Amino acid sequence: MSSAAYFLEHVGETYGYFFRTSDVLYSAKSKYQQIVVFDSPDLGRVFMLDNYINLTTTMEAFYHEPMAHIPLGMVEKPRNVLIIGGGDFGVAGQVLKHDSVETLDLCEIDEEIPKVCCRFFPEITQKAQNDKRFRMHIMDGMIYLREAPAESLDAIIVDSTDPFDTSAAFPLISEEFYQLVHRVLRKKGVLMQLMADYMFFHKTWHEVLPRVKKNFSIYNPISITIPLYVTGVWGFLLAGKDRTELETDLITKEYLDKLGNIQTMTPELVKGWFSIPEYVKKAITA
Amino acid sequence: MSSAAYFLEHVGETYGYFFRTSDVLYSAKSKYQQIVVFDSPDLGRVFMLDNYINLTTTMEAFYHEPMAHIPLGMVEKPRNVLIIGGGDFGVAGQVLKHDSVETLDLCEIDEEIPKVCCRFFPEITQKAQNDKRFRMHIMDGMIYLREAPAESLDAIIVDSTDPFDTSAAFPLISEEFYQLVHRVLRKKGVLMQLMADYMFFHKTWHEVLPRVKKNFSIYNPISITIPLYVTGVWGFLLAGKDRTELETDLITKEYLDKLGNIQTMTPELVKGWFSIPEYVKKAITA
Repeated sequence: MSSAAYFLEHVGETYGYFFRTSDVLYSAKSKYQQIVVFDSPDLGRVFMLDNYINLTTTMEAFYHEPMAHIPLGMVEKPRNVLIIGGGDFGVAGQVLKHDSVETLDLCEIDEEIPKVCCRFFPEITQKAQNDKRFRMHIMDGMIYLREAPAESLDAIIVDSTDPFDTSAAFPLISEEFYQLVHRVLRKKGVLMQLMADYMFFHKTWHEVLPRVKKNFSIYNPISITIPLYVTGVWGFLLAGKDRTELETDLITKEYLDKLGNIQTMTPELVKGWFSIPEYVKKAITA
Repeated sequence: MSSAAYFLEHVGETYGYFFRTSDVLYSAKSKYQQIVVFDSPDLGRVFMLDNYINLTTTMEAFYHEPMAHIPLGMVEKPRNVLIIGGGDFGVAGQVLKHDSVETLDLCEIDEEIPKVCCRFFPEITQKAQNDKRFRMHIMDGMIYLREAPAESLDAIIVDSTDPFDTSAAFPLISEEFYQLVHRVLRKKGVLMQLMADYMFFHKTWHEVLPRVKKNFSIYNPISITIPLYVTGVWGFLLAGKDRTELETDLITKEYLDKLGNIQTMTPELVKGWFSIPEYVKKAITA
């Protein structure tokens, strides 16, 4: 009889998720974080970083689809895309569904993440691995942005760990970060960034929004339904350079159908995610 | 030093939520279920039935607002409304925001629930308690429906526990239930019913939909974002009698503004909840 391990993901101090498994496949500390992979009878294969769920094979589409297809749907024929983080290649696989994309660079700070994911999540990593447009760089995203040519990218997608002050992702919500992103984006380029839940981590929003406003002509907090992410609604930021609109009307049924096999998005859902209910308004402006 | 209690809410066999508290205020078994009330530093005051979260004071609006304002927004001047279940009076408080409502009957099978809620959640129960239009009946909803006059109600809202086969709510997804609801509703009346998550409890949908189709001219599964409800997206059913449309266009900003202090709904979010992404389509038709 195999013994059971329990993992706890703390949302608040006193509540969160528990996961029981008898199949821990990998557990090791990298330079940056504790990496764990286990099989769950309920959730499929699970990938955790520092005791936070990053992905499960049964639910990965809820996160990876909108992260890619919202920003790329707002740019006319996106050619050059950068992902910061995203070492599981889940978002990369979605970005590469776009025929117009000529280059996709992915900048992951922790070399262990792609290694572990290519070994344990081949069905997620293989699309990017097999695509010649895809290039991975193991380096700090801030350094990558400082060295990147100005006005060279159509979209930047930040698929990092939560940008708390204890995380390697914390510089990705700094003043300098938004200046660098603005410099590297082309005219009408967009930034899509994982940000924070509105109920438990609204302080992140208070820190970030003034920095975004200073650098971008338009932005929108987006509330996407992500099962297993804290309250089920996670906050993302979409910001646009040299433009007056972030047009949800461009995310049509035809657009999604053409991408193929989209599970979690509809044009109406996307419009809903862009609208800001009162509780979110209070949380981000308080 | 007070000792800590842990409550576990199982979603699947091997995962779910944990809650730690040092303030268990009430714990007793009624004729129908285990009722627990505790205070949580993260979530406010929490109400659990048989180890499933029913409400928390910080998040109750996510559930109670759409349960009331979606169905009532689809009926012109709703006058007579019935709630089956809902013994915490949370949905009732929202229904009574509608000036056109002349009578609101609430049929709760477990007399302990309103007692416990009036004691521990007065800020939720008092709106209904103080309203002369409100009448509570401690009885089985099926019996209430059998005895109710035909074509006497504009809307029926089922705010029950999950309708699993082990629950007192199980008869509320039976063939007879939908026949009774159809009989008691007026022309153009609507039924709004808590149903089931699409990922873990899709079997409930397979059982229910044929019974709904047989009795109602139109229906729509609705996916509402409910923090703390399993995956964060919970499935509801809206069904209409003698009508060809369930018009989300009626849920306007003006409609919501007039109700006052709506925290969780926007017209765009409601339209999104009505749209059916591919994973839901697969789940309910499989």
